Order: sequence, then structure tokens, then C-alpha cells
Amino acid sequence: MFSDPILGIAWEVSMRRICLLISLAAASGLAHAEGEHLLVAKRIHTGDAGAPVAEAMAWDAQGRLLAIGSARALYDRYPDATRHDAGDATVVPGLVDAHAHLMNLGFALLRADLVDAASKDEVIRRLQAFEATLPEGAWLLGRGWDQNDWPGKQFPTAADLDSAFPDRPVWLERVDGHAGWANSAALRAVERDLAGDWQPDGGRILRDDAGRATGVFIDTAAALVDAVVSQPDDALRAEALERALAAAVANGLTGVHDMGVSLADLQLMRGFADAGKLPLRIRAYANGDAAALDALCAMGAYEHASGRLAMRGVKFYVDGALGSRGAALIEDYSDEPGHRGLLVTEPAAYAAGVAKARGCGIQPASHAIGDRGNRIVLDTYAAVLGDQADGDHRWRIEHAQVVHRDDLPRFASLKVIASMQPTHATSDMPWAEARVGRERLYGAYAWQRLRALGVPLALGSDFPVESVDPRLGLYSAVTRQDRDGKPPGGWLPDQKLSPDQALQGFTAGAAFASFDEENIGRLAPGLSADFVVLDADPLSVDASRLPALKVVSTWVDGQAVYTAD
Amino acid sequence: MFSDPILGIAWEVSMRRICLLISLAAASGLAHAEGEHLLVAKRIHTGDAGAPVAEAMAWDAQGRLLAIGSARALYDRYPDATRHDAGDATVVPGLVDAHAHLMNLGFALLRADLVDAASKDEVIRRLQAFEATLPEGAWLLGRGWDQNDWPGKQFPTAADLDSAFPDRPVWLERVDGHAGWANSAALRAVERDLAGDWQPDGGRILRDDAGRATGVFIDTAAALVDAVVSQPDDALRAEALERALAAAVANGLTGVHDMGVSLADLQLMRGFADAGKLPLRIRAYANGDAAALDALCAMGAYEHASGRLAMRGVKFYVDGALGSRGAALIEDYSDEPGHRGLLVTEPAAYAAGVAKARGCGIQPASHAIGDRGNRIVLDTYAAVLGDQADGDHRWRIEHAQVVHRDDLPRFASLKVIASMQPTHATSDMPWAEARVGRERLYGAYAWQRLRALGVPLALGSDFPVESVDPRLGLYSAVTRQDRDGKPPGGWLPDQKLSPDQALQGFTAGAAFASFDEENIGRLAPGLSADFVVLDADPLSVDASRLPALKVVSTWVDGQAVYTAD
Repeated sequence: MFSDPILGIAWEVSMRRICLLISLAAASGLAHAEGEHLLVAKRIHTGDAGAPVAEAMAWDAQGRLLAIGSARALYDRYPDATRHDAGDATVVPGLVDAHAHLMNLGFALLRADLVDAASKDEVIRRLQAFEATLPEGAWLLGRGWDQNDWPGKQFPTAADLDSAFPDRPVWLERVDGHAGWANSAALRAVERDLAGDWQPDGGRILRDDAGRATGVFIDTAAALVDAVVSQPDDALRAEALERALAAAVANGLTGVHDMGVSLADLQLMRGFADAGKLPLRIRAYANGDAAALDALCAMGAYEHASGRLAMRGVKFYVDGALGSRGAALIEDYSDEPGHRGLLVTEPAAYAAGVAKARGCGIQPASHAIGDRGNRIVLDTYAAVLGDQADGDHRWRIEHAQVVHRDDLPRFASLKVIASMQPTHATSDMPWAEARVGRERLYGAYAWQRLRALGVPLALGSDFPVESVDPRLGLYSAVTRQDRDGKPPGGWLPDQKLSPDQALQGFTAGAAFASFDEENIGRLAPGLSADFVVLDADPLSVDASRLPALKVVSTWVDGQAVYTAD
Repeated sequence: MFSDPILGIAWEVSMRRICLLISLAAASGLAHAEGEHLLVAKRIHTGDAGAPVAEAMAWDAQGRLLAIGSARALYDRYPDATRHDAGDATVVPGLVDAHAHLMNLGFALLRADLVDAASKDEVIRRLQAFEATLPEGAWLLGRGWDQNDWPGKQFPTAADLDSAFPDRPVWLERVDGHAGWANSAALRAVERDLAGDWQPDGGRILRDDAGRATGVFIDTAAALVDAVVSQPDDALRAEALERALAAAVANGLTGVHDMGVSLADLQLMRGFADAGKLPLRIRAYANGDAAALDALCAMGAYEHASGRLAMRGVKFYVDGALGSRGAALIEDYSDEPGHRGLLVTEPAAYAAGVAKARGCGIQPASHAIGDRGNRIVLDTYAAVLGDQADGDHRWRIEHAQVVHRDDLPRFASLKVIASMQPTHATSDMPWAEARVGRERLYGAYAWQRLRALGVPLALGSDFPVESVDPRLGLYSAVTRQDRDGKPPGGWLPDQKLSPDQALQGFTAGAAFASFDEENIGRLAPGLSADFVVLDADPLSVDASRLPALKVVSTWVDGQAVYTAD
């Protein structure tokens, strides 16, 4: 690995597999035929091209699949296995969210939820209800507001919050995580004088004509307020993670690619894994070129013995997001002439980080939303990979949301994985064209165009930016409609995914993106028994019913980690 | 581990053992009887109380010992094994240096060697010879000077170097690593004005009556010059490590406890391990409460799959060293009234580091030389361990050189391991009594007093402070004499170790101190075939011959990693 960084991850992973197989061999040697399980359902979608549909599957005490086939054959073959009758239910491989933020979801579950608030008044009402649960003097934190959902679509101001909250500091994160909204009490807590005409690198303080901060902070500017918010202690952080994990498995997730994990977060997750409290598989990506990447460079890709936690990659941020006009565009924003977005990381520093990751055999995953952001990533990957772009490196672009027409084929030639979020498309569709114009939509949310070029897709939600519920991701992927079925036929409908393609993106596609395809993503002998039991078949129900599918139970390593009441 | 930090390391280690045994079982299953080896020698000291002496041993292709006994019995039992005839030689378990600094040794091998220079003139001559190998403009670095070896025993000055080296910066580390000596060219390179009466925390700038720096910097003060020395690049660092490893195995070392390893050093060592270029076992201790400890807290104790590299502990510095009067004493230095030494780490910060290590299940190893330094460590260990001092924590004190009479029994009650260096005693004996006086010598270098209390001893050299050669450690341990046999009968002779005790300290004692006793330290079935072939028996030759024993070959995992010409 040291001498061949490009093959580093593959090496790490195969070492891990060898170790896994050895330990399973030894363990099953001890276990004999004990602890075998047999599940029968109306339909099992294996994701295995050779035998796509089955009605029964058996696994051993270690949660390793033994056989998949007809109920009769498996009843005969495993007469002593513990039986699980799923009746009319449908089984699919465990759903994996290829881009999400567990800690943020946990803290979001500990903050006022402002998602889909239809007006500033509704925001105030929700905050007042939430405040009742708060101790005296604590900051009132919330998240999920989106001025695009409100009459006028104007950014809010501190004054909007001050009458309801004159004294308690209020700090509200925008739905995309790229902007914050503070009341005057929070503004007073900021050390630096916010007035004037200065701006922080990579961010923007919105100001009125008199040069006073209005209360909205874009991208890195939000750090001015974040810095004075009281930090959560270990107990609160553990509470947040526990809530996030519970929400994930309740929605059918058996795995999450956590994009941007600090050493402290990894330590918390490892504590859960050591204590057997990780109900799903976390594939953690280090938070940029920082301490966690240094640790990976020194110690190599991290693997927890349980298989529930690993860190083999690093997440970089290149630009901001489209909703707050932070996404870096090659040309001006169509709805803000003269503005082309923001680079969150200086390109030379970003390139140095990617080169460092490669030298350490660590997989880069780079956040790029605007066409300029995506081009910077592609140029950087090409320069760092040099003549080894054709290797099995699986370097990722996260979001790949607005890609220049000319850059689409470069995803294929550089063998880049497109890690995309279907619900971003349906959340953004009301205003995306206003931001970038019709022409640039050609390469925007272009799932089928990328697929047609042979680009591997890994699907996710970016929760808590969007809902943790992958059923909504499947629905958005196959309909490109909002929950009310608008627009008819779907937005840019030629980019819709088939139900098969969408499910593949949340299973095998995600598994491939984290080098886990030999362990999860399909249901086949030798793989882990990670699966979800649904009350109906997501591949045959009418698409409008996908959000209402019931998660009957969620299984990881052959054990139920969630069961509906 | 998370829920029981005290048992953390034991858990990590047993997990490692399980994994090791499984992989060996699997591997040997593939290997059948192939690759077996059989070595016969005049005498094999097994270190195994049950069968302390044998004449033959066999091991498998994985380097795991299969049997030890008579030559006849093993010839019969392993007729197809590859035979190694050691003739009249003696075999002992692989020697492990329980306290050393590989990178420093490597850089020392790349610097002018000033050890045992009998005068400043000899220092100049050695430097002039070494300078011939240096490129124009490069710093002339050296190490190993000791003013106690010179007429007058006075600290040197920059002026002593300036006539021979008027322009090239010269920077020379003292033999104990706790002081540096610069020429005027080096002083000119220092950014900060060195004149005046200020002193850095934890260090001292020696100045003349006019307040000018004389050129000698004690402990942390040396950082002022270190900061302006050009840093070695990766190629030079790799060269240094390679030279250190070669020197270690050539002297019969099969393992080293490296005390104070940065993440960057660990990355370099891991590269060697990945490439199969680590000829011995490194047990790395993180360099204090810094990035490496944070990584261990996040990822858990580090284990390389090869078994050649691990990081399960952290090294803390409490005080300085005795030679430079940096060791922290409870009362004044006998030869410098009013001076009681230096604390390199502020006690509260040190205690926080130990508590953090415990919380992460990481083993602390604390440098303490003076009786005040040792008391601070004992007080801290007692406070952090609380009512769990009786557990199998194996917390270490490095050097434990001058211990207050009242504190000796606390090593036993707190179950602390004393990691001591026999050659420090024989290097320090000419002036140690002058530093601390007769009374304080009761608890100084008190190997037998600690043994009598039941304290486990792990022996090492602290190379490059002392020689990397463990034969000199064995010699010092059993004689407490210098190479000329002075003083007659040895210094403080009641603390001498028997040859058995000394060998045990460099084998099983060191293995215990790094939680490796189930894999190395003895020669018994199931353990690794780590051993040294010597031309004579260190347990029966006259002690004066110990330094001249020939290392015929050094073996790790059943493979020769060094063979004498």
C-alpha cells in the first residue's frame, strides 16, 4: 500500500476480507449448524443478476448468507434453522445512504425542525412550541428553513425573530446547511463587530444599506455565530448519535456513508461499535485534510473488527450549495448577475489534500455542486491520478449537481463515482432553473446521462439536509415529482431512474462506492444478511405509493435491528 | 474497551491474539508440514522456568515455535525440516530494548558522533573530519558530547567552535539529549534575541555575566535553535530509520519499545512494515498528548497485521535528566544549591494526559528521573487509577532513576512497571553522587530494591543516549562497572543483577511491559521464533566478556534478519 497508494484501498479491503473470512471460518467451525436462520417471504429481490428473485434465504449464526432460493428447497436443506415468516412482505437488500451526516441528523433531532415551514410566522410558531422544552438561558437552535418556501422568497432578518425572542439567542440553520439566521440576541453574542463592508473568505454576511448585519450568514460567515454557541458535551453527542441511528434503521437503512467525520466523532462511533450499539454500518469519511486524515495516513484505513464501522476515505468541500447561491458556477448565476458562487476550499489547498489522500491510499470524496466546482474536482483528480486514472480507485464526487455539458464524459474517462441525492433534485426543481437557466440544466441532476456514459451512481439523501427516509429518495428518483405529484410527468423526465436503477443506487451502487460490494449490496451466499422487509414491492407498486411503503423490519448481519410495532 | 478503559488494552491485545491464532491456524492449514525449520545449538536458554535449557527447537513456516527439546527427539519428530546447525553457539530469546528512540538513533548515525570525546579539542577534530562529507551550507550536526568527560567538566561555549567553524552553523546535542551546544553562526540564525534575562518555560539559556547566550541551551531552550535547523525530508527520514534498524538487529535486538513516536514517524514505520522492511518488532509509544494519542483514542490501539509494529501506549515527559541538572528533585541539587531541576510538562497538563490515555484504554509510560519527577508520576497514577490500581494496567515509569526512599514501595502497590536502563547507571556513576548526594542514592538505580518489592523490571538502553548494543546493557547490569572494570566490585554493588535477571529484563520483562508476553520473551511452543545466536553463553561467561560476545545471527518470526559475515 505504501509503495502503491492507488491500490492502497483495494489492498486494505482485501486484507479485511481475508481476515473476515478467516474469522468466519473459525467461528462457524465452533458454531456447527447452530444458530442458522431461514426467512421466507412473498418475494425477495436479491439484486443478483443471476437469480434476481427468490422466496427464501438462510444465514448462519454469524449473519452470513448460506443459500437463497425456493422455500421448499431451503426448508429441506435447513430443517433445524430458526424460521422467520415474512408472509406477503417483500425483502430487498439493506438500503445504504451513500451521502449523509449522522451527527448532524442527531443534533437536528435535538433542534427545532423548521423543514417545510410555509412562512416566517410558521417558523415563529414552531420555535415557540420548541422553546417550552428548553432550560433558561440555553440557545434556541433550529434548522430547515428555506425562504424559497415563503411568500416573497426573501431572506429573513433578525428583526423577524426579535419580538418573539427578545433575550434568548436564536440561531437557525438553513435547509441546505449553507446559511444561518440569527436574532439580535445572537448577533450581540458575536465577538467581532459585524458592521462595515468586510466579508470573510468563502462566505458572506448579508447587510442592510446602512452596513448593519441583517442576521443571515452565508457559508463560512456562519462560523462567526457558530463560534459563540455553547458546544454539546459528550453525553449530548452520544444522545444525538443514538437518535440518528434509531431514525436511520427505522427507515430501512442498514448502512450510511457519513461525509465528514472528525476524530472525536469517530471515537464516539467506535465506542458505540465496541459496546455493540451500532445497529448499522457506518462508512465514515474523514473531515478534510485535518487530524483524521493524518491518522489514516499514519495507521492506514480504519476498520472496526465488527464490520460496523470503517474509515477509508476523506471528504473535501470545494464549493457551497445552489439554494444559497454558494455553488461555484463557471458563468454568473442567472438570477444574480455578477455572482458566481463561492469556493469553500482554496483550489491549491484542495489539490494538496487530494494528493495527500492518494499518497496515503485513502479514497477522496469531494463535494461539488456548481459546474465550476465540479470542473475543479475533475481537473484535480485528473492531475493527481496522472496516468493511473484507469485504476480501481473509485474516487467520488459528492452531489455532482450541475455539471458542464463538456465535463459529463470526464466522469467516465476518470472512472469517477457520481454520489447523487434524488431528493435534492425534487427539492431544488422549483427554483433550480432560475439559478442556472435552461441551458445549464442539461448537465444538472443528470442521472441518466451519467449512467449512459457508464458512470457508477451511488444514491443518498444528504440527511439532515433532506429526510433520512430512503423511500423518499426512491420516489424522487423514479418520479422527479414532489409529494403532490407535481410537475405532471416529472421534472426533466428523461433523467428519471427506473425502480430497479433507483434501488440499485441505494444498495449495490452505494456498496461499490465504499469498497463493500463483496460483503453487502446484494443478497447472495457468502454476503452479509443485511436486508429490509417491506409491506409491498417497491419494484412493482405504483410510484406514488413508494413514500408510504411500510418498513416492517430492518436486518443487519442476520439480526433484526428494527421491527415495526 | 469503551466501557472499561482500564481493561481496554487487555481487550485489544486478546482480540489481536485471537486474530493471530486464527490466521496462523488457517495459514498452517494451507502450509501442511512444509516450511518447517529445526535449529540445533550447544545450548538454548528458553527463559521457560519449566524447561530452562534445551539443545534444539523447531518452528513452522509462519515462524511459530512447534517444539523445544533434545536434538535427537526433534530430529525424529521433524525429519523433513530445514536444518540449522548452530554448533557451539548459545541461543537466547530475542533481545528487546524496552526504552529507545529509533529515529534519533538513525539521525545520530547521520550526525557526527561525539560520544566519549575526551576533550573539546577531540570534539573539534571529529567535527572537522565529519564536515568533509557535508554539502556547502548544510548545518553541521553532531551529538553525544558530555562535559563531564572533559578536563574541568565545564559546559562549553560557542566560542570553542567558532575558530574552526566561523560560517557554517554547528549544533551539537548533549549525550543525554537534554542540552544543545551551538556555535555563533547557529546563534545568529535564531530569530529571537537571546540576550537579556528571560528564560523559556521548562528550559534554560546559559548566559555570561553580560547576559549574552554562551551557546548552551538546556531542555526546552534547545527548541530555539532546533526551530531554525533545516528539517530532514522524507528520503532522509527513511534513510535514518533504515540505518537504525540495521544497527539494532546487528546487535541482537528483535524488538524495540520506541518512546515518543509522532504520527509522521508511525506512517514511515508502517510503510516499512507494509513493504516487509521491518526486521524487528517496534512497539511505538505516542509522543505525549498530541495528534498520535488523539488518533489512538479515535481508532483504538494500533496493530499492524504483520505483528512487527504496534502503538498501544503513550510516552509522557515529566522532568529532564540528571547530567544537565534537568531532573526534578524534591530537595536542592547537592552540587547546585538552590536548583531543583525542571518540569518539562506542567503537572496538571500531565495529569490530564494520563487521564485521557486511561479513558482511551492506552498505556501511559512516563519519563521520570528525579525523585520529584517520580513522585509526581506516582501521585498522578494513583489519582487517575483510583480504586483500580490493582488491575492489569501495566502503567510504566521510564528511567525511575532517583526515587525517594518512601516512594519505592508505591511502585509495587500501584503495580507500576519500572523501565530502567543499566547503562545509564554506569554512565552516571562518576558524577551521580555529586548531583544527589549519598543519602538520595538509596533509591537511585535501585534495581534489586525494586525487584525485592515485586516490581516488574523492563530493561533498555535509551539509545541513542546510550549505545544500541544490549550486550553493554547486560554487562552494566551484572557488573555496575565501566568498560575498564571500575570501580572494583561495582558501583552500589548490592543493586547488581544476576545474569539471569539481566537477560530476563531484556526479554520476558520487556515483553510483559508491552503486553507481548504471550508471543515473545521466551522460547516455548506457540510463541514466535524470535531469538539470538551468540558465540558464547551470556549466563556462564565471565561478566567481563559480555561486551565482546559475538552476535552470530538474529532471528524474528523464524527468519534470520541479521547474520554476521
